[in-house]
This record gives sequence, C-alpha cells and structure tokens, in this order.
Amino acid sequence: MIRAGIIGSTGYAGAELVRILMGHKDAEIVWYGSRSYIDKKYASVYQNMFQIVDAVCMDDNMDELAAAADVIFTATPQGLCASLVNEDILSKVKIIDLSADFRIKDVATYEKWYGIEHKSPEFIKEAVYGLCEINREDVKKARLIANPGCYTTCSILTAYPLAKEGLIDMDTLIIDAKSGTSGAGRGVKVPNLFCEVNENMKAYGIASHRHTPEIEEQLGYACGHPVVLNFTPHLVPMNRGILATEYAKLTKDVSYEDVKAVYEKYYKDEKFIRLLDEGVYPETKWVEGSNYVDIGFKIDERTGRIIMIGAIDNLVKGAAGQAVQNMNLAFGLTEDTGLDLVPMFP
Amino acid sequence: MIRAGIIGSTGYAGAELVRILMGHKDAEIVWYGSRSYIDKKYASVYQNMFQIVDAVCMDDNMDELAAAADVIFTATPQGLCASLVNEDILSKVKIIDLSADFRIKDVATYEKWYGIEHKSPEFIKEAVYGLCEINREDVKKARLIANPGCYTTCSILTAYPLAKEGLIDMDTLIIDAKSGTSGAGRGVKVPNLFCEVNENMKAYGIASHRHTPEIEEQLGYACGHPVVLNFTPHLVPMNRGILATEYAKLTKDVSYEDVKAVYEKYYKDEKFIRLLDEGVYPETKWVEGSNYVDIGFKIDERTGRIIMIGAIDNLVKGAAGQAVQNMNLAFGLTEDTGLDLVPMFP
Amino acid sequence: MIRAGIIGSTGYAGAELVRILMGHKDAEIVWYGSRSYIDKKYASVYQNMFQIVDAVCMDDNMDELAAAADVIFTATPQGLCASLVNEDILSKVKIIDLSADFRIKDVATYEKWYGIEHKSPEFIKEAVYGLCEINREDVKKARLIANPGCYTTCSILTAYPLAKEGLIDMDTLIIDAKSGTSGAGRGVKVPNLFCEVNENMKAYGIASHRHTPEIEEQLGYACGHPVVLNFTPHLVPMNRGILATEYAKLTKDVSYEDVKAVYEKYYKDEKFIRLLDEGVYPETKWVEGSNYVDIGFKIDERTGRIIMIGAIDNLVKGAAGQAVQNMNLAFGLTEDTGLDLVPMFP
Amino acid sequence: MIRAGIIGSTGYAGAELVRILMGHKDAEIVWYGSRSYIDKKYASVYQNMFQIVDAVCMDDNMDELAAAADVIFTATPQGLCASLVNEDILSKVKIIDLSADFRIKDVATYEKWYGIEHKSPEFIKEAVYGLCEINREDVKKARLIANPGCYTTCSILTAYPLAKEGLIDMDTLIIDAKSGTSGAGRGVKVPNLFCEVNENMKAYGIASHRHTPEIEEQLGYACGHPVVLNFTPHLVPMNRGILATEYAKLTKDVSYEDVKAVYEKYYKDEKFIRLLDEGVYPETKWVEGSNYVDIGFKIDERTGRIIMIGAIDNLVKGAAGQAVQNMNLAFGLTEDTGLDLVPMFP
Repeated sequence: MIRAGIIGSTGYAGAELVRILMGHKDAEIVWYGSRSYIDKKYASVYQNMFQIVDAVCMDDNMDELAAAADVIFTATPQGLCASLVNEDILSKVKIIDLSADFRIKDVATYEKWYGIEHKSPEFIKEAVYGLCEINREDVKKARLIANPGCYTTCSILTAYPLAKEGLIDMDTLIIDAKSGTSGAGRGVKVPNLFCEVNENMKAYGIASHRHTPEIEEQLGYACGHPVVLNFTPHLVPMNRGILATEYAKLTKDVSYEDVKAVYEKYYKDEKFIRLLDEGVYPETKWVEGSNYVDIGFKIDERTGRIIMIGAIDNLVKGAAGQAVQNMNLAFGLTEDTGLDLVPMFP
Repeated sequence: MIRAGIIGSTGYAGAELVRILMGHKDAEIVWYGSRSYIDKKYASVYQNMFQIVDAVCMDDNMDELAAAADVIFTATPQGLCASLVNEDILSKVKIIDLSADFRIKDVATYEKWYGIEHKSPEFIKEAVYGLCEINREDVKKARLIANPGCYTTCSILTAYPLAKEGLIDMDTLIIDAKSGTSGAGRGVKVPNLFCEVNENMKAYGIASHRHTPEIEEQLGYACGHPVVLNFTPHLVPMNRGILATEYAKLTKDVSYEDVKAVYEKYYKDEKFIRLLDEGVYPETKWVEGSNYVDIGFKIDERTGRIIMIGAIDNLVKGAAGQAVQNMNLAFGLTEDTGLDLVPMFP
Repeated sequence: MIRAGIIGSTGYAGAELVRILMGHKDAEIVWYGSRSYIDKKYASVYQNMFQIVDAVCMDDNMDELAAAADVIFTATPQGLCASLVNEDILSKVKIIDLSADFRIKDVATYEKWYGIEHKSPEFIKEAVYGLCEINREDVKKARLIANPGCYTTCSILTAYPLAKEGLIDMDTLIIDAKSGTSGAGRGVKVPNLFCEVNENMKAYGIASHRHTPEIEEQLGYACGHPVVLNFTPHLVPMNRGILATEYAKLTKDVSYEDVKAVYEKYYKDEKFIRLLDEGVYPETKWVEGSNYVDIGFKIDERTGRIIMIGAIDNLVKGAAGQAVQNMNLAFGLTEDTGLDLVPMFP
Repeated sequence: MIRAGIIGSTGYAGAELVRILMGHKDAEIVWYGSRSYIDKKYASVYQNMFQIVDAVCMDDNMDELAAAADVIFTATPQGLCASLVNEDILSKVKIIDLSADFRIKDVATYEKWYGIEHKSPEFIKEAVYGLCEINREDVKKARLIANPGCYTTCSILTAYPLAKEGLIDMDTLIIDAKSGTSGAGRGVKVPNLFCEVNENMKAYGIASHRHTPEIEEQLGYACGHPVVLNFTPHLVPMNRGILATEYAKLTKDVSYEDVKAVYEKYYKDEKFIRLLDEGVYPETKWVEGSNYVDIGFKIDERTGRIIMIGAIDNLVKGAAGQAVQNMNLAFGLTEDTGLDLVPMFP
C-alpha cells in the first residue's frame, strides 16, 4: 500500500486527488495538508467527503511527511515545492509536483513568465515532465515528477503526433483554449464569483499566459526545434473541462486517413487517449470526471489548415488524474489503477 | 456474473445504469434496449461511453431478454413495464422497474394520477416497493421490484423516522422539492431547452404531481394511517440533484438530540444515508454522482415546526443507483457492490 | 431633474440602481459612492457602463452629499445608514435606504435578528416602509424610506390580499423561497464562488433568516394580529430572480374565482403586479430585468391549502427598481417613470 | 409611427425584436406572425410579455402584411424570405430579412453553403447588406435589407478596420468564435436540451459553418481581394453572447497606438462600437441586452500576430437590435432610437 501525503489538499486539484485516491486499491492518504484549515476536519471543508474521509487537516511539515509517506503530492501555489525540496527529502520519498516549479527546463524562462526566483534550480534537470503518454519510461524511474498543467496537457497531446511527424508548420500553430472555472482555483476574488462568471465568457492571459512556454518547450522537443506560438485561454461558465481548438498549416497534402494513421501510430495503445471517429468532435462533458483525452480533427482543404480539437477534464487528466497516473508508473503499478473512471453524463 | 438487460438504456436513467454497471464487478450488461436507436452503436448515442461500451442498441424483445438475462431493468415510460410483464417472464428473470407501474398498491389511485389503465394489476400485490432502507428483507426475495421515484426517495427517507415514531403531525407535512433538469428526461420539448431552463426557476405539477400518492402511501405505512400532504416540485437550472425541504408540526416537545436519536435509530447502520452534523444542511453538490442521501434538520421553537432537509442525486439514489442497490439485494450480493461512488465536487 | 447620490454604488444593488437611473428621464446620478473604489472610474469596476458612465467613485461624505443631491440611496451593509442619518441631513435630502436599518418598527426585534445596536432609533417611527403597493400614500410624504428586502417584497406581496381579507390561517403560513445568487452580493467568500454555487442547491438561514421578522411584521399589519411563520431561503445557481412558494390553510371554502377576486381587489390597478391566468404559474425568467411581481395560485382541495407563488427580479423589484419606484412617489413623479423595463427572455 | 410586421415572431430573434420594439417610440408592431402558434395569444408563448403584448399570433400572409405594415421583419428559416419577396411587395413595404437569403452576393456560393435553391436571385443585387457601421448610406435608401448573421456581425466588425487598412495578412486570419445557446434557436432537438448544453463546451460546423462565406465576402470587400479563412464556432453554456477571438499576422511593425488609431479612424463616432482601453478585453456579459460591440486587441511581438477580440449580444447587435438599427436608418430616424439599451450586469 502506497502511503500518500498531499500538500494543498483543500484546493480543487487537491480535493480531486482525494476523490480519486479514495478509489485506488493500492494507495492510501496519510496526510491531508492544508495551511488554511489546520486542525479542521477535512470533511468540514469538503462536505462531500463526510463519512468518507475522517482525517483532520495538517500543516505542511516536509520532514515529517517524508518519513510518513512514500509519495508527496504538492498541489500548491508556484514556488512552494521548489522551496521545500532537497536531496534528503528526495532520498526518502517521491514528489509529484502539481505546480509549475519543475515543468520548464530553462530556469530563466520560468523566472520570466512566473515572476519569481526559482529556489532549487539544481533539481530542474532531474525532474521528469510527467506527461505519461510521452515520457512514460522516464516517469517510471523518477524521484521528482513535474505534473503538467491542465491547458498544456490538452494542448500538447492534441498536436503532439503531428508535430513529431512534421505534418504541421509549427510557426502557424495557434491554440485557442477554453476552460471551466475550477481551473481558476478556490481562491476568493471578485472575478471568480458566481455572478461574474455565470452567463459570461472572456479571454484572459492573452499572449501572456504562463502555460505558453510549457507548451512551446514540449512541442519543441517533439518537432526538434524551438517553437513560438499563440495560446489564448478563455473562461467558460462551467465547473470542469478544457477544450483546445488548434489551428495549423499542413506541410504536405495529406488525407484524413493519413493523419489518422499518424495519431494512431502514437496513441493506438494509449488507454486514456480516445481518437474519435471521423466527423465526431470532442465535447468536454464526454470526458467529465474521467482521465480521458478525446481528440478529433478536420482537414480544411480550402485553407490548407488542419483543425485539431482536444478535450479533457482539467481536474483529472489536467491535474489529479494525471498525478495518480504518474504515481502508478513511478511505483510500478498498472498505469490505470484507480483511474477506471467512467465519464459522467449528464 | 449477473447478466443485466436494460430496456430504455438511452434515457438519462438508463444511461446512468450503464455508467454504474460499468463499475460493478459482479454484473455485466447483455442487452442495451432502445426503441429509438435500434442498431445504432450505444456509444454514438452517448459518446462518453466511446471505447467503453461497444454494444449496439436493440429492440425490447421481452422473451429473448428473459432468456438472455438474469435481471431486466425497465427504464421506460409509464405503462410499458406493466404491458410486458407476465408469469412466464417472472419465472425466468427478475424485473426492476424504474417506472411507476408497480409502485402504488391501489390500482385506482395509480390509474387516476397517471391517467392510464394498468395492464397487469395482478402483479401489483407481489411487487416490492424497492426503497431498500425500508423494505430490505422483502427486496431480497422479490421477483418484481418497483424502483421508487426520484422525488419520492428523497421525500420519504427524509421524513420516515419521524413519521414512524409519531414525532410529526402528518396533517401538517408540506414537502417543497427542487430538482435538476435531468429529472425531466431526454425528451425533446420547448420547456426542456437550455435557454428555457437556464437562469430560470419555476414550480410545476402544483398539487397534482404524480409522485404525491407514492409519497403519501409510503409515509402512510410508516405512521399507520392515511396521509394527505402537499408536495410541490420545482425545476432548477442544474443537471442533477434533488433537494427536499419538508415542514411539519412536532407532536411533542423534543430537543435536537431527541430527534437525532430517532433518525439514528433507523439510519445509523445505513451506508447510504448520512445524517449531517448539527448546523450543517444538505447541498445537492455534496452527493452528486453518488448513492448517498444527506439529511439535516432544524427545530424551530418559534413555530413548533421541524424543518427536515434531504438531498440526493436524482439519477443515482433517485433512479439507477437505487436500482443497482435493489439488484444487489435481490441477488444476494453485498448491498453496496458497485455503489462505492464518491461524490464529485466541484 | 432629481439629483441622486448613491452610497454603495458598486454592490450589485447599487449597480442596478445605476442601470435603471441611466434610463430615467427625470433623474441624474451626481454621486457614485463606493468606499472600496474611491477615485477609480466607475466604468472600470462595471465595464458594462463603459462610455455610459464617465464618473469616478467617491467616498461617502454625507454632508457634502446632502448638499449636492435631492435624494440619497444607501445600498450599504446593515448599520451604515442608521449611523449616518440625522435631522440636519433629513431636512435637506430624502433618504431611501436599501439596507434593513429602518424596516422593522420594533428596535429590539431589529437588534436581536441583526445582532447590532441601532444607532438612530429615533428615526424608526418616522421611516416609511417603502412597499409602494401597500404604503403608497405614506411614501409620497416620506423623508426617510425603508426600501423592503428582496425576499420580503416577494413574500409579502404574494400573500398580502389573502392575509388582509382573512382568507388564510396565518398560523399555517409557510414560505419556501428560492433566490438567484446576486442576492448574496459581491462580497468575496468561498460559498459565493462560481464552482460552489453552480450545479448546486441548498437551503440556508433556516428558521433564522433576517427577512423573517420583516415579513412577519408586515403581514401582521395586514391581518391585524402578530404573525409567526416559517421562512426558508434557498440559493439557486442563477444570477437573478426570486421565487416564493407559499402554503397556507384556507379559512373558508372558496373557489378559484373567489380568491382571484380578492387579489384583484388589491392589485387590479397595480402596474407592476401581474396576476397570471388560471393554470399559469410564475417563472423567474419572465420577470428578469423588470419591476414586475408575477403571482399565481392554486387551491388544493385535498389538503384545504392554497399554494401561492410569486416571482420577482431580486435586483429590480427586490431592490433598485423598488427604490426608484419609491423615489418617483416621494418626488411626485409618475410612479413608473424609468421603470417601463420589459423582461428579457431568454 | 412606423408600422412593423414580424414574420417569425416566436423564435428567439423574433421575440427579441418584440422586446426592443416595445421600447421604440416611433414604431409599433401590427403583426405578430408565427406559423406554429396561429391564433394563440403571443403572451402565452412568451409569458414575459403578459400584459405588455395583447396580440394574437397570425399566419404569414405577405400581401395582407404589405398593406398593413411599413416594414416587415422576416425572422424565419433560410429560404422563406426569398420565396415571399417580389416587386409588388417591395413597392409597398421595406423588408428587413434576418435570415441569410440576401446576405451573399454570389448566388452559387449561397446555394452551395446553404444547400437550397435561391427562389428570387433577381433581388440579390438590390439587397443591401445591413451592417450599419459599414453600409450606412446604402441602408438609408434600401428597400430590401439583408440583416447580417450574429457570428458575422461580431467577426467582421472586430477585424474590419485592420482589413481595410491592410494591416493584417488576410491569409493568416483565423476566427475562433464562441456563442451562447440562444443562437441555436428555439427548435426542439436533443443537442439543445438543457442537460446536453449545460456544463459542456464543443466546437461545431468546423470548416463548414454557413457564416464563413458571409464573413469572407465582407472582409474581401474591405481588403479589396478575395479572402479565405478559418471560422470555428463553439457552443457555450449561457443564454446570450458571442465572443470572437481573431488571430492574424501583422503586415508591418506597428505599435498599440498605431492600431488604436486605425480602429478609431473607422469607429470613433460609432455609438454602438466601444473600443476598450488598453489591457481591457471584452466579456460577453458587459454587452448583454445591449446593441454594443466591444472590441479589444493585443499585439504579440513574440509571434508577430495581433489578437483581436470582439463581443456582442447575439440576439441584439447580432439580430434584432441591428434590425432595428437598420429600420431606423431606412426610415430616416435617429439611428439609436429605441436602442439606448444599457447592458445588464449581472
């Protein structure tokens, strides 16, 4: 039984980790970290867990945690994980960081986009970018896993095979993404109030969102050269779900079947990636509550572009589900243990 | 392995049955009945089931089904189950009817409120009202189970212990219930369109809703005399969830602890009923996707009334979850098999 | 041209006052008070007002305001208006208070339910309860108008004629009310976040909501004796709208027409009250954005009760619209000036 | 007083026309056409209009209508207006067609994208494309006005000045648009049901939506050469609002101020177009219920692209509001008569 500690268990991503781990036969949560609710019953913060979780929230003592747990999930604001990690900790426990601290290999890029100094750059090289479908073998051996961002997971996986195979002109790639509001977290501020989000739609972080360099870096590895692209996130009045609509010029004259074959080359054995049938395009509700990535695409012969569309549940494949998938790999478990989550509709 | 057939598998309740049975280790679906989608892939009707359910929708041939299945769920409009059931069928297969056909013992009451002739009144007596927490022993032996309505499940369980113990004046009982829109089904009509329901709230079926006699009959059994009450359902702009707010005069001077003790007398060992702590009241989101019934109450000393509040997910405990709970009982399985569904929040 | 000052113009009720007064031909806003946004452009707080309102938010200097304005609207937290009002101010300017400070005649009741000391009890007697349809003549002469609460406006007007005419047993009156989330204001706290409210429904303030004594007092005046009742508010995932479902025993054997006649006796000339046709019941969307109160009812012969249903837009008739209606009356304007707001659907 | 007839008054666009014309001092509706509800009270179809509209729905007799009205609005499915119009009608009455029949100058393009034969191609040349801000002078003289589509209005106006001035490379223009569900109309079908739209987001009409050629044609006029672009609409779980996010390569090195100046050159006197301040981007809620087009933009120096964002209320500026604006121009009224609609928030 893997003993898991969660730092930041009362944010939405942390709470989703709790939900998923409740159904994981080989893991148990031994530490519900939450600075905001120390000594309060976890179920009083998330009443859905009443009579399911009996534990009390604890402070984030990393040393105690390293002794008590086999894996630590840090579902915390940027900078916290980097400030806590050290060789002693990593020698005792694996860390799966749901923040951005170890996602970007170039520390200058990290510091520029996030506006904070990185407190432990010496671990960046070792950290494995935990996009399981792409870095599976590295994840299996990792001590420190950088769990990908929600937008990035959806954005990268939707374009990855075509980037890798040189089918699209990376200079023309535009990613227009839409997210449910749980992606904004549980922090209290006016723009997250019900009446501000409901019946409203907006773009934000235009040409400046922090997930941009993460997407660029990973797709750059895929295509073999640096990538600069436009990524625009939008806030949608729904709780969960990310839809990424991606546009790029095709580099050659290909048919639907050609492109399908390329996707299948990389994804046909991937349990969590579903290539939809021709003419069917992803809807966020079809993956809600599950770890699936749904992908569809259409070639537009008029413009020579391909439109690729991907959908995930931002809290599952975009955060907690992927973190558990990483844990499974890192501990030698079957990759989908605890992740056989059937999407809920409606 | 229990072989299950579903007639009406493409309605919302039928689809929820599919979702729940996908995670049931001792049951498998052998028949996806759907008159509307015969020969179409089930996953093309519910794309969330893509690569999970590979089956094709079939017509509702009861004889074939009785041979192929151990249990038949009828998630169909009123009248259909009553028109299909007969002794031969029941000798081969158990039936769990999610419609109202066998819920009401008095056939005249059924015919009056539902406006249709009952096609097989001879089976009404045998049928067991499948409110597991109340009729558990009868359900275990039943061939024909009348799965309770969504509003009724929530309304009855919220008041049952107090009715049973004579703590409330049944003549004063008023049930004001609110439901998510999945309760209205997948039928296409203007009042169910997004733009008509969204940002709107209304009462309907005022003093005339069909769940009224069902609630009255069951609470009548509990208190030992006929009950006539007001039940008012409301439509809420959300997908799932029922909240029942119930008002009644207390018959004696009781404290919070007294009432709590009465609830615990009946429910303390019930896995799916959660009595919330004092001062905490149910919210539908806390039970979403799960088989829980959350109950809270407050005594108002100013008016001498008690306000009881219950919440369920209308598609789970109010339909498919309870149907599986009934199946588990009727087939001698552990009652919560496949029903360890953790509520999803947010 | 009436010069209006608003203290608290950046709350939702204040913002709705701004919206309505923009279309009022005989009034202009001369003071956009907002402690939180002093010196910020009003339109930067409410971008919908960009190029419509050019003003800057100001502090709430009552003396300056009294000199600059003919009427002051206080859309502020409880206690503030009571702490600002004095004879000097009232001799110069009329005050329409959207808080609860002057609604309740019994200062002990106010202090008990609101948990604060009343700072100017000497003005309570003079203050007119601004429910225009009931206190029209007094409003016309008032200097200090207590604008009714949102729930109370809907609750009282829905039952008033029957209470006044003795048609219902006031001891049996139960009000189950449902409100959109703008009623909770723009204050930042976890329970008001989008993800907490969306897809969720709950009761709150059970047997303890502050609008209870206000409803009881006013209905007590109507029926001529003290009233004690149950009032239960619920939070609904929508921006605007209140629906009140009210239950009471009829005191005599009356027909639909009898009750209709009673409603018409009081309301037939009321422009803002719409008695719906038989069999039609209010929906909040039908009054959205308007100053209407829609009312329907049904007699339940089985239980001897009448179910009365009322709907308003909580920010219009429940707050800003009624405040403007009061202003119109108090300044001798046509009552519906600026209030010919056609409900928006969908 | 202009006498207006509406064919298709019970669709959402028709209903919005009714709402707006109720507040228009120089127009009155003399004909509420609705094939689906002939002889039924209009207010029984839209209860928000109870006691506001007393009329009964009528069939769409064009000859009678031409005699009774000064202007006819056709808010009907594609093909109907083209089948009804003729010289005799046009000699008596102006027609403002909210369908697509007369928007596209090339009849072959129309027939290809809409899949129907055009019944009166002889009037296409005469018809004026009623995008008031661009074709104001022609609209003033028109007998037959093609009211632009909702997506097209937002998409075109957001990019028009830059296309006109050659600031963007039209071959790189990509329009990713998001719409509330009222854009899908009041027709009953499963994908429009509340539970299918709510908590869901999807793209549709990918590389095939009918508004594409309309946008291409108009932007082609602006830039002086044919345009082929990608336009992808998305369905959002909200009632109203369109947000268009548009991407294009800049053709020269320009600053924020340069681009701002270009927008101002065309729009600075436009009452209904609001260029937002630097760093502020449109949100659909800020224009809800109003005839505004809100526009913001950002230059991304990293990619050499400009991201332009526009927002409208699809039923107002995207349909009924623009139709009234066209009517005002065509009848010599002040352009904003009846359109001083303040956006409603929240």
